[in-house]
Amino acid sequence: MFKDFKITEGRPLYIQLKEYLIRMMTNGHLLEHQKLPSTRELSSLLAISRNTVLTAYADLEQEGMIYAVKGKGHFVSHVETFQSPTIELNWTEKINEQTFLSEKLDLIKHGVRWNKEMISFTSIAPDEKLFDVENFKKAFLNRMSIEGDIVLNYGYAKGYKPLIDYLLNYMELKGVDIRNKDILITNGFTEGLDILLSTLNKKYGRVICENPTHHAALKLFRLHGYDIDGIEMEDDGVNIRELEKCLSKQEYDFAYFIPSYHNPTGIVTSSEKRKKIMDLFSAYQLPIIEDGFNEELRYSGSHQAPLAAFAGNGNNVIYIGSFSKILFPGLRVGWILADKELIYYLESMKRARTVHTSTLDQAVLYQYLNDGYFEKYIKKAKAVYKKKYELAVQYCKQYIPCKRITSDGGLHLFIELDHNIDSQKLLEKCYQKGVVFSTGNVFYTDSSGQHTLRLGFSRLNEKEIIQGIKIIGDTVKHNYGG
Amino acid sequence: MFKDFKITEGRPLYIQLKEYLIRMMTNGHLLEHQKLPSTRELSSLLAISRNTVLTAYADLEQEGMIYAVKGKGHFVSHVETFQSPTIELNWTEKINEQTFLSEKLDLIKHGVRWNKEMISFTSIAPDEKLFDVENFKKAFLNRMSIEGDIVLNYGYAKGYKPLIDYLLNYMELKGVDIRNKDILITNGFTEGLDILLSTLNKKYGRVICENPTHHAALKLFRLHGYDIDGIEMEDDGVNIRELEKCLSKQEYDFAYFIPSYHNPTGIVTSSEKRKKIMDLFSAYQLPIIEDGFNEELRYSGSHQAPLAAFAGNGNNVIYIGSFSKILFPGLRVGWILADKELIYYLESMKRARTVHTSTLDQAVLYQYLNDGYFEKYIKKAKAVYKKKYELAVQYCKQYIPCKRITSDGGLHLFIELDHNIDSQKLLEKCYQKGVVFSTGNVFYTDSSGQHTLRLGFSRLNEKEIIQGIKIIGDTVKHNYGG
Repeated sequence: MFKDFKITEGRPLYIQLKEYLIRMMTNGHLLEHQKLPSTRELSSLLAISRNTVLTAYADLEQEGMIYAVKGKGHFVSHVETFQSPTIELNWTEKINEQTFLSEKLDLIKHGVRWNKEMISFTSIAPDEKLFDVENFKKAFLNRMSIEGDIVLNYGYAKGYKPLIDYLLNYMELKGVDIRNKDILITNGFTEGLDILLSTLNKKYGRVICENPTHHAALKLFRLHGYDIDGIEMEDDGVNIRELEKCLSKQEYDFAYFIPSYHNPTGIVTSSEKRKKIMDLFSAYQLPIIEDGFNEELRYSGSHQAPLAAFAGNGNNVIYIGSFSKILFPGLRVGWILADKELIYYLESMKRARTVHTSTLDQAVLYQYLNDGYFEKYIKKAKAVYKKKYELAVQYCKQYIPCKRITSDGGLHLFIELDHNIDSQKLLEKCYQKGVVFSTGNVFYTDSSGQHTLRLGFSRLNEKEIIQGIKIIGDTVKHNYGG
Repeated sequence: MFKDFKITEGRPLYIQLKEYLIRMMTNGHLLEHQKLPSTRELSSLLAISRNTVLTAYADLEQEGMIYAVKGKGHFVSHVETFQSPTIELNWTEKINEQTFLSEKLDLIKHGVRWNKEMISFTSIAPDEKLFDVENFKKAFLNRMSIEGDIVLNYGYAKGYKPLIDYLLNYMELKGVDIRNKDILITNGFTEGLDILLSTLNKKYGRVICENPTHHAALKLFRLHGYDIDGIEMEDDGVNIRELEKCLSKQEYDFAYFIPSYHNPTGIVTSSEKRKKIMDLFSAYQLPIIEDGFNEELRYSGSHQAPLAAFAGNGNNVIYIGSFSKILFPGLRVGWILADKELIYYLESMKRARTVHTSTLDQAVLYQYLNDGYFEKYIKKAKAVYKKKYELAVQYCKQYIPCKRITSDGGLHLFIELDHNIDSQKLLEKCYQKGVVFSTGNVFYTDSSGQHTLRLGFSRLNEKEIIQGIKIIGDTVKHNYGG
């Protein structure tokens, strides 16, 4: 007995001993009313200080797990034995259709599995090597010293006030008229969209969006039971004639657009098209959900105002923003900027479903932004990503025989191959050679896009980008000519 | 011009200047192609260093907001003007019924408003003065130095692996058989329950639970369209005969129980009743959602194993836990421990809806727990809350004429007054005297409980507890005799 006590680093010893003794009781190695070794005995047996044993015994006694008898030592208290009949439910029978759909559309579960030796173009997450951990620590310590106790207690469903104010100013600087608007803080973009979809009346059950578009958004539209009409992407944004045709023929609940560094095509919708989109949606009195995806990742060209700015003092644009995509994805913080009335209701839904977004995340993010670290970080990050972007574009043009490469910046390129090339089959061949990417079909609203692929380059170094692209190019040429 | 530039503390000056200039452009005070003052002029005009102006100009140029002409200075670039027709949608028309219900059931929006001079018994949040901010900082810095870059990048929908492993061990020490079980980390208890309700098949549309019970859970059952049958609470847990009668008469999808420090009654279900409940639910092959609410806040008596432990190697108990309630509510971290198969599906739903819970929150919480700070904190917190608890019980018994006071510990008491006393009216009278509390009716599954109230004492000092209880007692006596 007591010979299998193993010490692990970093955790207080008295807790380890306590937990070890509890395990002995629950698994039947220490029985009810059995006498424990004296503290002196146990400390010598386990070669730990007597104080450690004393603390562990005192805790166990205080928790009612053992009891002391004066002059006789410590004994095990009542040990609960669990003799209820155990039942084995079939949980799969209890899962609803929506959940099966979420599992079916779960890219992480069904995507290609790759290992660390491979070159993976699947991620569009930021490169953690660029993270500004030291300034993040400073921001944390700064905020904690200002109001650590408040940061750690319950916050408000609407969000952390200093962050909301910061973001209102931030949106105003993008040209957005914030009068009669308000902000709700969410656990990133995805929760923002999900709460919004849970709140809006589904009158027509139909949404219009770019085709292809963000997979997570498509998944949520489908889970909420919407039919989806996708509009072809031209090099400067959606095909306006096609959009107009759809709007004139069909009723929609709302549109979903990603005007900047569109996922997956990387296209930035031109200023002219933004105006045309807004004119059309004003005429049809339709709401737009604007995904502010990676708006900050501009490497060249001039500033583009979001659709929310083009809306002026109108209220039909719901802007969902997030710093997670380029700053710190591990912090789940996003925001919805929309009409005050709408935010009022979204707030109740947010409170019912997740109470509020982590105050810690919000407060540290606020401090980091306010201290100007974000500006410094984004300059550094942009310089690095721009180089990778230009390299990727150059090598794709040179090595991959393709019909079209799109991307005006951001962290990924989108490639259309010849229509006879199935990118899933190409992926299987590239996988053999140690290269993986995202097949484009998952981003399409219909069954098209079998011949497309997305290359995320943010987390690869230059050598890997070049080598990976060459392998994809060679595989295309070898199998399909070129 | 430039005379209204105001400097605020704490934010880098060049950013403040940049934002000021952007505002001048967007609001029409600086026009397209207008010449900006030279850096020398502007620095002297605003009494700031020339370097600050240089940095701001360089940034604006890099962002395409201004352009430089060699030998001539800086000029304003194209300024977007927004002339789209603005539209005014009626958002209330676009809100669905479920959202109106969430607003109607939103206690924060419709609860009593009180100010800081009043004595409020409404909160059951922990007292932030007890927070162990210094050790929390240590845990943060410790974790960041181990893997800061990983903590800040995307995590997994299922949760942060070290925390999951910690919690599996934690649950095992409570006597839970973790074979064929798994854990999903959620944004606190509330998201856990919401995701679960979104995942389960609604076969009968009916849930059975204690009456009264946790308001946030009732709200979610209602939002998910469940009918609710509540079972009367006796001093040692639900009335088993009544429970059995319901189960024999009616089909249910599942039950919801809070066996320890039940909210709002504070009752701890006895070990005998826990066994009986498990036997019944085994016989009826029904799942139980167990709310592990404040299980750690035991001030006396022996350790009580959760229902999940009584289930043995059966799989019908879904345990939802959270440290937020007593540790750091500002961190939104909870967990679901359940059958592996069920967790597999819950994971996909979690990913679809919020991607994952903040890795920062999870990682720092893990470090805090693993370093043994939680054990120290809970000892200190228990000593303080125990005193407040005993004081509150003593004074309630002495001063408030009532039929029943329940609470075996935790951070609140529940009081049943004479049936002819409406606690809403009592609240209005106490409000006039500077004391507020939660009326009990919101915790009931039916329209009963008009004569009940909940007193949360965690954030009040001893003087306030005594004074507040005396005022409530006097108000009862004065208005209803006693």
